[in-house]
Amino acid sequence: MVNGIERPLDLLNQAKGKEILVYLKNGNQLRGTLLAFDIHINIVLDNTKELDNGEVKKNLGLAFIRGDTIIFISPSTVK
Amino acid sequence: MVNGIERPLDLLNQAKGKEILVYLKNGNQLRGTLLAFDIHINIVLDNTKELDNGEVKKNLGLAFIRGDTIIFISPSTVK
Amino acid sequence: MVNGIERPLDLLNQAKGKEILVYLKNGNQLRGTLLAFDIHINIVLDNTKELDNGEVKKNLGLAFIRGDTIIFISPSTVK
Amino acid sequence: MVNGIERPLDLLNQAKGKEILVYLKNGNQLRGTLLAFDIHINIVLDNTKELDNGEVKKNLGLAFIRGDTIIFISPSTVK
Amino acid sequence: MVNGIERPLDLLNQAKGKEILVYLKNGNQLRGTLLAFDIHINIVLDNTKELDNGEVKKNLGLAFIRGDTIIFISPSTVK
Amino acid sequence: MVNGIERPLDLLNQAKGKEILVYLKNGNQLRGTLLAFDIHINIVLDNTKELDNGEVKKNLGLAFIRGDTIIFISPSTVK
Amino acid sequence: MVNGIERPLDLLNQAKGKEILVYLKNGNQLRGTLLAFDIHINIVLDNTKELDNGEVKKNLGLAFIRGDTIIFISPSTVK
Repeated sequence: MVNGIERPLDLLNQAKGKEILVYLKNGNQLRGTLLAFDIHINIVLDNTKELDNGEVKKNLGLAFIRGDTIIFISPSTVK
Repeated sequence: MVNGIERPLDLLNQAKGKEILVYLKNGNQLRGTLLAFDIHINIVLDNTKELDNGEVKKNLGLAFIRGDTIIFISPSTVK
Repeated sequence: MVNGIERPLDLLNQAKGKEILVYLKNGNQLRGTLLAFDIHINIVLDNTKELDNGEVKKNLGLAFIRGDTIIFISPSTVK
Repeated sequence: MVNGIERPLDLLNQAKGKEILVYLKNGNQLRGTLLAFDIHINIVLDNTKELDNGEVKKNLGLAFIRGDTIIFISPSTVK
Repeated sequence: MVNGIERPLDLLNQAKGKEILVYLKNGNQLRGTLLAFDIHINIVLDNTKELDNGEVKKNLGLAFIRGDTIIFISPSTVK
Repeated sequence: MVNGIERPLDLLNQAKGKEILVYLKNGNQLRGTLLAFDIHINIVLDNTKELDNGEVKKNLGLAFIRGDTIIFISPSTVK
Repeated sequence: MVNGIERPLDLLNQAKGKEILVYLKNGNQLRGTLLAFDIHINIVLDNTKELDNGEVKKNLGLAFIRGDTIIFISPSTVK
């Protein structure tokens, strides 16, 4: 299998410590370094930035994001 | 049964490694190669493209998509 | 009981291999041949057509539809 | 207890084979003969009519309705 | 404890056979005599009236209301 | 720990018999005396008032509020 | 791992007794001192302030916030 990804969470495991982009159901995006996640896809980011149309709107530092508010996650630097 | 599909997930199993189109509840579509999925229909795509009315809007590479944001999935090249 | 339907899923069982109309929560409709379904009402259609006010908008071939996006299903040819 | 209804599902049991009115979360109504239901309030109607402000908009025949799209059900002929 | 209410469902138990007002998530209200309820707060009303800004809009007789469409319930005559 | 609150429900326990303010997902607020609650955060209030921008819009007496319609609860007199 | 955070809830544990910012699904924000949380991400804040575009709109004192109304939580002073 490409990249050793057999189950969806394998991608998040590979992305730990790397920067990811999180698309939220409210239309916003968060970018930050993935520190932790669980099976509900609750995640913790470090150096979190809130983006508006790709522009940094706010620096948030650490952030806990509830899984049920996430549409998709793209680990920009994994591949 | 047509195509050997007895249960809904059989279609996703057949589509592994092939290109699929994912329709999201927010009205957007993602197109990419299906790498993995689970029983929650969480999926991982490779070479993901975000589409707007069929036009490629953004290249996302790898993407983890939460199952509960998906309306339907159409594996364009399976059949 | 009319048509041998004692439990709701009996209707879907009878509709296997026949054409059904699926009304989605986003207001769209999908029409296609029912290949498979599960207890979550996840379903797989073949020869799927996306309808807009009854007009065919797009041909989708095979499609996996998440149960939680469905309002109701009408098997036009069962009866 | 009035009508022998001790638990909510008793009302649906009494309404089997009779005409009911189903109010959906999307604002539409369906009218038809109740053939079957389950504990999720998934229901099957026969001779289903889609109503718009009380007017018949479309004849649907048999229909499977997902319970989680229903606001309330009024069995017009039970009492 | 006031009125012998120790758990939320105790209020609904006391309201059986009495008139209650049900506020729905879609902004409408239903008024009727509480016949039955279950732990999902699915309820059955008799002599149900659909209200619009406090005015009776429609007489519905018996009605089964899904618990997940309810905001709050006020038993006007209990106290 | 401040106020002896170790788990979230401890705050609701301390607020029993006192006035609380309940913010609902539909934008409205209810104010009343907390009589009972359960683990779903279903709650019963006495002397309930429906507020619109802080103004009393309606007196409701006893009210059963479904937990899943609540955003947050502020026990104004606890502290 | 940065900051000793291996699981998402570790961040909330570290933030106990410190000020956090809570982004709600309705677009509002609450700021306050984290007193308690549970696995549903229900949380209790002390000295809670309701913010509108970063401006303090209202002082709420203690507040119980339902986890399912939260998008993300940023512990401003943890790091």
